[in-house]
Amino acid sequence: MMRPARIDCLQYCNWNRERFLEMRAGGLDAVHATVCYHENFQETAQNIGRWNALFGEHSDLIMHGKTAADVRAAQESGRTAVFFGFQNCSPIEDDIRLVEICHALGARFMQLTYNNQSLLAGGCYEETDGGITRMGRQVIAEMNRLGMVVDMSHSGEKSTLRAAELSARPIAVTHANPAFWHPARRNKSDAVLRALAATGGMLGLSLYPHHLKGASACTLQSFCEMAARTAEITGAKTLGIGSDLCRGHPDSVVEWMRAGRWSKTADFGEGTAAAPGFPPPPEWFKSAGDFGNLGAGLRAAGFDETETDGILGENWRMFFERGFSSAP
Amino acid sequence: MMRPARIDCLQYCNWNRERFLEMRAGGLDAVHATVCYHENFQETAQNIGRWNALFGEHSDLIMHGKTAADVRAAQESGRTAVFFGFQNCSPIEDDIRLVEICHALGARFMQLTYNNQSLLAGGCYEETDGGITRMGRQVIAEMNRLGMVVDMSHSGEKSTLRAAELSARPIAVTHANPAFWHPARRNKSDAVLRALAATGGMLGLSLYPHHLKGASACTLQSFCEMAARTAEITGAKTLGIGSDLCRGHPDSVVEWMRAGRWSKTADFGEGTAAAPGFPPPPEWFKSAGDFGNLGAGLRAAGFDETETDGILGENWRMFFERGFSSAP
Repeated sequence: MMRPARIDCLQYCNWNRERFLEMRAGGLDAVHATVCYHENFQETAQNIGRWNALFGEHSDLIMHGKTAADVRAAQESGRTAVFFGFQNCSPIEDDIRLVEICHALGARFMQLTYNNQSLLAGGCYEETDGGITRMGRQVIAEMNRLGMVVDMSHSGEKSTLRAAELSARPIAVTHANPAFWHPARRNKSDAVLRALAATGGMLGLSLYPHHLKGASACTLQSFCEMAARTAEITGAKTLGIGSDLCRGHPDSVVEWMRAGRWSKTADFGEGTAAAPGFPPPPEWFKSAGDFGNLGAGLRAAGFDETETDGILGENWRMFFERGFSSAP
Repeated sequence: MMRPARIDCLQYCNWNRERFLEMRAGGLDAVHATVCYHENFQETAQNIGRWNALFGEHSDLIMHGKTAADVRAAQESGRTAVFFGFQNCSPIEDDIRLVEICHALGARFMQLTYNNQSLLAGGCYEETDGGITRMGRQVIAEMNRLGMVVDMSHSGEKSTLRAAELSARPIAVTHANPAFWHPARRNKSDAVLRALAATGGMLGLSLYPHHLKGASACTLQSFCEMAARTAEITGAKTLGIGSDLCRGHPDSVVEWMRAGRWSKTADFGEGTAAAPGFPPPPEWFKSAGDFGNLGAGLRAAGFDETETDGILGENWRMFFERGFSSAP
């Protein structure tokens, strides 16, 4: 029998062999890797092309994940399966037929918005969230058909609740924490937590300091106690990890993540003018190599072994089965 | 002294020499011609490239209009000045810096939305209109700086009212009628009419049958009486013509206008499954050659000569001066 899978359901690192070795050190069998923040279709295809080169160069450490079964295949071969996801719908531009094209290139997650209003839904940084748009309804149906997960991590509350209703498959918030613990704009209300739990969805708990109570100084104990309180609302099976690890990037990357091409002036997003760069990671989660630290913390917060294994990967693995399979 | 200018502030015809001769027959000194419905930046640049070829081939009949003074220049040379406009913000994609690039290529009007939600604002066919987005506020400021008119013809009510507030220059609804006369989704509320009037904006009255009471059977008298009732709300100086003339296109073009690339299924928009094509034009406005018919109708509805001249072109010409000049 295979040991339980370890999955980090959101990273955006400056990928190279060192990063892949860290994932192996952390025991990660699979990672959901962001391949787009603001890129259009062609730019995203180029990012995927670079990944294809990495798969060739580091075939001893990583493989391209396309199906839920690839998590086990990666485990069996001692590698990490890399599943592609978009943090924005920019790769499909205004063309619903690009959803199928992106799925063929490997996209398994797509956020309907990244902070701002998109053609599909409202973003969590907008004053008003009008909900899922006409095109959004059609794109959700197309994603459901193909087996591409609707990810609402950076979406507004109304859009998120509506997506959970409209989607025929469970949706995910791959990387965010509950707002009851730390009321950041990116963190989620109890209503969203309950909607995820009620529909078989998932919440990937985030280790990104702006999503943590106490930011970079947040303790492992505080994080894991938050997980336990969240599980009281959602059940432990709804929880996973989506670390939002952004390791090895210069600060120019977070500036670009926030401002994209939509603004002529600086937008500090979750940062401030005084601290515009990437925040320093918590001491106990500096790289994917620290993934193992989470287990002891979750056990200490009261999760049993099965629940802990679920949160560290098995819940995501079973969600991948529901999310990625071909439509019946 | 020049005779009053005649301007049609919205046409999207299948442009060729016959169309240009019709504009001359109708006495049109200027036309606002749509060069984009759903096209991205490169596709729009290609459309403009085709216009540049037309300017060369038909330099006896048309010229490229860039400034308000070009209306008089066209009059003086017995030609029609063609001003470019976008019915959607798709040409700027997600890049605010493309606003200046599009202005340099001649764009003088841009709708913030075309029926559906865009990155900038809510469309008139959406269930919910969230208003002007974060990017929308920045793009309005950029359009104000450059002298590109904010056109809200296909936008939702909330977005339209908010755009009128946010824009430092008057905005336009280049082609729509009042909803009090014919409650089509594309026609405008009294609140929008009042906001246009209060801010020095303009309403271009539309001759497109789906915007007319009685559709294709609408009489010139009914249309001009509507204009008179509208002027009671807005004053005559707020009114112009934006005929929305779509002459010479096959029905496949209106199908594309409605569905673009956002839908895998037919969207009938203002039409129906039983009548999906272009509606037949009213007998008294089949081509730009009929523009002269409007004058007698407006006089019969009670407008004096100066008001009639204003509605038929002078109001738009003066609006062009306010809208196209360089920022102070």
